[in-house]
Amino acid sequence: MTMILDELVARLHPTQTLTGDATESYTRDASPAVPEMPLAVVLAESTQDVSTTLEWASTHRVPVIPRGAGSGVSGGATATKGSVIVSLERMKAIRELRPADRLAVVEPGVIIDTLDAAAREQGLMFAPDPASSAWATVGGAIATNAGGFHCLRHGVTADSVRALTVVLADGRVLRTGARSRKNVAGYDLTHLFVGSEGTLGIVTEATVKLEPIPRGQTRTFLVAFPSLMQAGSAVSELMASSITPDLLELLNRTTANLVEDFEPGHLDRGAAATLIGQVTDLDADAQIHQLRTLFARHGGEHFEVRKGDALIEVRKRVQPALAARGMGVAWMSSDAAVPPSRLSELLRHIEQLQIEDGRDISVVAHAGDGNIHAAVAGGAGGADDLAAAKRIVRAIAERAVQLGGTVTGEHGIGSLKRDFLALQFDETALEVQAHIKAALDPAGILNPGRAV
Amino acid sequence: MTMILDELVARLHPTQTLTGDATESYTRDASPAVPEMPLAVVLAESTQDVSTTLEWASTHRVPVIPRGAGSGVSGGATATKGSVIVSLERMKAIRELRPADRLAVVEPGVIIDTLDAAAREQGLMFAPDPASSAWATVGGAIATNAGGFHCLRHGVTADSVRALTVVLADGRVLRTGARSRKNVAGYDLTHLFVGSEGTLGIVTEATVKLEPIPRGQTRTFLVAFPSLMQAGSAVSELMASSITPDLLELLNRTTANLVEDFEPGHLDRGAAATLIGQVTDLDADAQIHQLRTLFARHGGEHFEVRKGDALIEVRKRVQPALAARGMGVAWMSSDAAVPPSRLSELLRHIEQLQIEDGRDISVVAHAGDGNIHAAVAGGAGGADDLAAAKRIVRAIAERAVQLGGTVTGEHGIGSLKRDFLALQFDETALEVQAHIKAALDPAGILNPGRAV
Ligand SMILES: Cc1cc2nc3c(=O)[nH]c(=O)nc-3n(C[C@H](O)[C@H](O)[C@H](O)COP(=O)(O)OP(=O)(O)OC[C@H]3O[C@@H](n4cnc5c(N)ncnc54)[C@H](O)[C@@H]3O)c2cc1C
Ligand SMILES: Cc1cc2nc3c(=O)[nH]c(=O)nc-3n(C[C@H](O)[C@H](O)[C@H](O)COP(=O)(O)OP(=O)(O)OC[C@H]3O[C@@H](n4cnc5c(N)ncnc54)[C@H](O)[C@@H]3O)c2cc1C
Repeated sequence: MTMILDELVARLHPTQTLTGDATESYTRDASPAVPEMPLAVVLAESTQDVSTTLEWASTHRVPVIPRGAGSGVSGGATATKGSVIVSLERMKAIRELRPADRLAVVEPGVIIDTLDAAAREQGLMFAPDPASSAWATVGGAIATNAGGFHCLRHGVTADSVRALTVVLADGRVLRTGARSRKNVAGYDLTHLFVGSEGTLGIVTEATVKLEPIPRGQTRTFLVAFPSLMQAGSAVSELMASSITPDLLELLNRTTANLVEDFEPGHLDRGAAATLIGQVTDLDADAQIHQLRTLFARHGGEHFEVRKGDALIEVRKRVQPALAARGMGVAWMSSDAAVPPSRLSELLRHIEQLQIEDGRDISVVAHAGDGNIHAAVAGGAGGADDLAAAKRIVRAIAERAVQLGGTVTGEHGIGSLKRDFLALQFDETALEVQAHIKAALDPAGILNPGRAV
Repeated sequence: MTMILDELVARLHPTQTLTGDATESYTRDASPAVPEMPLAVVLAESTQDVSTTLEWASTHRVPVIPRGAGSGVSGGATATKGSVIVSLERMKAIRELRPADRLAVVEPGVIIDTLDAAAREQGLMFAPDPASSAWATVGGAIATNAGGFHCLRHGVTADSVRALTVVLADGRVLRTGARSRKNVAGYDLTHLFVGSEGTLGIVTEATVKLEPIPRGQTRTFLVAFPSLMQAGSAVSELMASSITPDLLELLNRTTANLVEDFEPGHLDRGAAATLIGQVTDLDADAQIHQLRTLFARHGGEHFEVRKGDALIEVRKRVQPALAARGMGVAWMSSDAAVPPSRLSELLRHIEQLQIEDGRDISVVAHAGDGNIHAAVAGGAGGADDLAAAKRIVRAIAERAVQLGGTVTGEHGIGSLKRDFLALQFDETALEVQAHIKAALDPAGILNPGRAV
């Protein structure tokens, strides 16, 4: 193996490869997936570097794992034995910002917030905003099709990608899409790579959409519901209306209590569900008025409004509150999604699981998108607890699929959720995905064992 | 061949197959592509019918051509010798309308306007609106990724598709996507089929997005520019601003004169470019005021505003005006697209071609999308004229690609624009597309010779 590696090292700049202990900080993502010792880390600086690496890896059948910031929570970037990690962190240039075309051309390693800040200097914004946006990369967001706080209004990362430069498994460089806003020549290869978790190619340049910053006043609101049914019917009526909030988050009773334990003051411990939302529009106050009436019709209580985004702070306490109880992202958790009209059914199913298992299940949902984040309380955190958490997370995924949804709405399959694939896909769908993988990566060297 | 066909006829209902002269009205689309005699037309009524037909076709290697309303203008649905046309026109049910999920589940043969009208009864709309929406099908719009008048604001058809049922070449039924608003499990197969022009599978059910109808007042405006440069810089500044018009159309001098010949009154025959646009918003008048100032800065003249969509009538005269001069869709025409900031460069190139060739070239552009429709005046319509038109359309496509755009922004490659593919795609891109085609349709029976 060392001789083979020497060949690669020789073809790159001496500072571009790491081996042994120096690879350590590149071996894990933010999930509990356990890393193994990689052969090396390549710190790519150009499309050419990535191409050189993949050509070499193809020839020698070395597995390659692309890596942005390693903030993924599905074990998608975790090192496997003998693999080569291709880190894109050095490729962080914003190559072009073209406000008139509402697009930017960037290298994959640029941090999401950095791109957004640059766009805002031009009066535009980069919409994708996962909670990890201060350190996650644009390439990672594209590879996982990341969601975020505001995707109810602005869509997911896929909606912001127009064209890609991708290095294929054999080192060839593929250019997908175009810079024009419309393009119907050939197949849509761009979106085949979006969300493919590094299993079809390595993104080395992206042409992404920028969009105008919403105008008007911002108002945040908070409202409590005595039952999940009522919260669900309120969300349904809202989504059927002409109002599209910037965001609409739901906390179940367990979550509200965790947050109150962590920093008391704002939440009704008895409420079955609390909705926290935000609207920004020229008639924000009129929308708030309409929402107040709408929520009241569905039993909403203690409706509270603030100017600006004040109440979002309450929502942002959920992560630290969970972390304080050892229920952070490190635990097995569900990010299943259902159509918004089915959200209360999923939540009631989770309540049932909570009762049956006697374990707390914290849910915070992007309610308008029907996308939940459920974390199972860990008990002592032993093997039994992990098994119980896994069982619960699987049961949630199963129910979400029955309700017309998906086993994963945000975080991707990675290595941790692969046995959920069969819950969502029948044999034909699995086979077609395998065929596409084989067509693009016949030797199977790109992030093997992930996503599909 | 007849024995083989008998086998298929026997497996369907007697009223579901047409042969001989009865196939005539299913053999051509709205393009000048010349049809050949098909083996038969299948009038599918269910996914099962389509599956039966494709299984049979696979076994006997019979080419299959999916067909919606036949309104395509690229020869994508034109019959070839010995092929079987699968018409989806009988599959026109709207199966579900779910306002709270902002989606509809439809059969592919539903007419676009019919779906939109049903959505509007619920206070929502179906965004895709090609000019053919009164007779084109949702399946056809999906298969071509159709654009429309309002896609500057609402996106193209791809942006409105959430999940599909597709019958694969061998008759297997694939379900892609999910009903949830977010879904990151597996590869995005949905958008691989969108725009694939019937070459990868036949869409037999679609789950499409509905969206709120824009609120506020509608205003239309018209403004003339002495030069293409000035019009182009005005479009660029507008697109870099926070205003997104509902639509923004540009007529070149040739088009303005054709329209004036057809129905005089509104347009400045001397203007190099006329912009016609529309805004709908809560502060429409303030936006109009801003636009007036913006256009004036770039030399805009005779700025005119109307309440409602009055001035759109002027834009709608372009098609009949062209048709009156034998320059309708039947002629070779370009639908190339470029980033909006490069539009004036493309238009100036067209002006140059017009001067060099001594032929009128009418351009009407979806300016905000940088998407042109250029029709070359036919002269006597002989072989020389056709050759000249082809040369010009090719030159436009070539320039569009150099400017970062595409050879086709709306109508697709079909059978007529296949030799443009090499202008836009290098060998790697062509090969990847061929690989995907081979992975999904190894026998090559689905709409062979189209799209890729
Ligand atoms: C606190 C926290 C909050 C989070 N919040 C959200 C959230 O709100 N929404 C959400 O969707 N996710 C969220 N995540 C998950 C994660 O941050 C996102 O998926 C993020 O987009 C990953 O970016 P990254 O650069 O860290 O990618 P990595 O973790 O490095 O990689 C993720 C996957 O993409 C692949 N990959 C990375 N770069 C490339 C490339 N250039 N080409 C090809 N493949 C590549 C990797 O192989 C891996 O499979 C959160 C994570 C944390 C820890
Ligand atoms: C006057 C006029 C105006 C037009 N305006 C526009 C416009 O503004 N924007 C625009 O984008 N286009 C426009 N078009 C082109 C055309 O109308 C659109 O592409 C339309 O969406 C095609 O729909 P159809 O049902 O007629 O499809 P068809 O013409 O029947 O088929 C088009 C292609 O899709 C395939 N196909 C059809 N149905 C299916 C299915 N269910 N599964 C798989 N493949 C299928 C066919 O094989 C063919 O390749 C216009 C055409 C005309 C004549």
